[in-house]
Amino acid sequence: EEYNLMLKTQVGNNVTAYLRPETATTTYLLFNRLDQDARRQYPIKIFQYGKAYRNEISPRQQVLRMRAFDQFELQLFIGREQEMDFEEFEDVKNEKLPLLDWKLQEQNINKPNIISLEQALNKKIIKKPAYGYCLYLGYYLTKILGYPDDVIRFRQHSPNERAHYADDAWDLEINTKQFNWVEICGIHDRTDYDLKQHGDFSKQNFEVFMGSDPKLKEIPQILEIAFGPDRIIYTLLEAAFNVEDGRINLKLPPILAPNTVAVFPLVRNKENIRNLAKKVHKNLLKNRISSFYDEAGSIGKRYRRQDELGTPFCITIDYESLEENTVTLRDRDTMDQIRIKIQEVSELIKKKSFNEENF
Amino acid sequence: EEYNLMLKTQVGNNVTAYLRPETATTTYLLFNRLDQDARRQYPIKIFQYGKAYRNEISPRQQVLRMRAFDQFELQLFIGREQEMDFEEFEDVKNEKLPLLDWKLQEQNINKPNIISLEQALNKKIIKKPAYGYCLYLGYYLTKILGYPDDVIRFRQHSPNERAHYADDAWDLEINTKQFNWVEICGIHDRTDYDLKQHGDFSKQNFEVFMGSDPKLKEIPQILEIAFGPDRIIYTLLEAAFNVEDGRINLKLPPILAPNTVAVFPLVRNKENIRNLAKKVHKNLLKNRISSFYDEAGSIGKRYRRQDELGTPFCITIDYESLEENTVTLRDRDTMDQIRIKIQEVSELIKKKSFNEENF
Repeated sequence: EEYNLMLKTQVGNNVTAYLRPETATTTYLLFNRLDQDARRQYPIKIFQYGKAYRNEISPRQQVLRMRAFDQFELQLFIGREQEMDFEEFEDVKNEKLPLLDWKLQEQNINKPNIISLEQALNKKIIKKPAYGYCLYLGYYLTKILGYPDDVIRFRQHSPNERAHYADDAWDLEINTKQFNWVEICGIHDRTDYDLKQHGDFSKQNFEVFMGSDPKLKEIPQILEIAFGPDRIIYTLLEAAFNVEDGRINLKLPPILAPNTVAVFPLVRNKENIRNLAKKVHKNLLKNRISSFYDEAGSIGKRYRRQDELGTPFCITIDYESLEENTVTLRDRDTMDQIRIKIQEVSELIKKKSFNEENF
Repeated sequence: EEYNLMLKTQVGNNVTAYLRPETATTTYLLFNRLDQDARRQYPIKIFQYGKAYRNEISPRQQVLRMRAFDQFELQLFIGREQEMDFEEFEDVKNEKLPLLDWKLQEQNINKPNIISLEQALNKKIIKKPAYGYCLYLGYYLTKILGYPDDVIRFRQHSPNERAHYADDAWDLEINTKQFNWVEICGIHDRTDYDLKQHGDFSKQNFEVFMGSDPKLKEIPQILEIAFGPDRIIYTLLEAAFNVEDGRINLKLPPILAPNTVAVFPLVRNKENIRNLAKKVHKNLLKNRISSFYDEAGSIGKRYRRQDELGTPFCITIDYESLEENTVTLRDRDTMDQIRIKIQEVSELIKKKSFNEENF
């Protein structure tokens, strides 16, 4: 028996079934319904998040190669005319992306060209504005997670490397210390391959009107942005992990840190300091700020714990707090401490953590 | 061969594996790590969301009985002493819950008693304050989704009905038109059964210090709140679905509606009305309000579409908008329309949709 990369099982009374090896195809399967739900207004954009399964012979590299993994993807159903005349491309055409096309790779060049999407289009590095927009969207969604610029690149598949369904394919890769460049996202021009196959096997015709010619029906093209969230988590943790003079500091952006803030009573055995600390903590939670209360161990040790967890801010309640209604606010990265009024805590944390500039 | 409710597969080179029939046990499996991560501060509260699989002979009742389904659960690892002396119980003991205990059911009574948790404890309907708190938490998480009061009840399992691991079990049920009472959440006192079994088979001792006696080690008790998110989605849609004088109105609370607001140009063929509508729409998106733009069909038809989708607010840009910089804001449920200034749109929508009272 041949080794099958799909996991096989029996459902009901011995009906053979397979666990899906990618989520994408279960989006394509629903095409008729999507077409109807979107009221035939193309392009149709579908997001999907789910599990996929592959029977890897040897799962390895931590969470990078697992038998059950998550996928998160955008599928764009679009007409040939729209691919070349794509409104949103205008908004992003001057954005510069680190592009390592396959011809550079053939010359053994490993450094991407940082060029605008418009330049890439003019130089025929990419063929379609809509596809360029997909590259940008993948890049944007990656950048807001807080990766440094120099660990991100797009690597184009050479014609030999491309999957059978792809007319163009770029991997968005993150440079890691442990595993070199790791693909976290693939952007594929799948053409009309999937819907053609679907139609052939299900005996359906998926031609729809999409272009300016009211008489021309065509099968939609599919552009795909597919992320591997498990790989995002690994590469983000590695990129954020810093050791500074022996201090472990997980430099997560505030929007991603599990705790936005931690609250400590300076000492554990003073009831009024402890109560005030708990009050500050509860008030933060009430303001929907993810707060963590900790009273165990020395202040230094508690700071270190939160640094390792990536908590951007720590608040300490001390003797002065009781008299002045103030607390100290410590910044994870600079380790600077400032004194602020208790009633200003929530607003300041919100402002520092979730202001527009973080997005 | 016996019919197996677990789905079987082969991984790697023919190693037999099963898809997990519930998510809970994969939390218990990690007990040592959880104990360490939480620095042995009991109770330990763990949330988990994931897929589970059961080989149902006949999947049925729409999404209520599927072979692959989601689970979302809280596991509370707790000492015997803490179960009886549970700080958070004080905050919720006066909350009234609709409790249909098994003795009422034996008398063929179907109407729950609406009594406070403290009363339930005093009448020995529940045994432990910590368990009462779990009932409340399940109820609270259900209530904020917007179910009407009269479709929610807790039904206790009779001693014969309880699973082998449970010392007490209540189902949180929703009364549906199609399927009568449907369990969306189960709250189980699993005792130390799971960790005992785990320890017996893995030859480990999971006794830890938890109580006031510094010499007494014990295996943690487990209290579980387990939700079925697929069932929440079905029952919520049914509860929100209304037909009023032939108008379909999906009365979702604003926090759950896919679109918080829809924006329409009154007419499609006036460029300045259309542009202003798009500007209003884009500005809403920029304020992170889920906005949907629609220009196809009559205004009445566009309102109906959004009513069916549960969109709480519709904004229309008309001729007056161009002169006065105002728009009409229509409420889904009352169908009342008010005129408001364009620059006040985002703040008003936020206030109406996400103010504290909705939580």
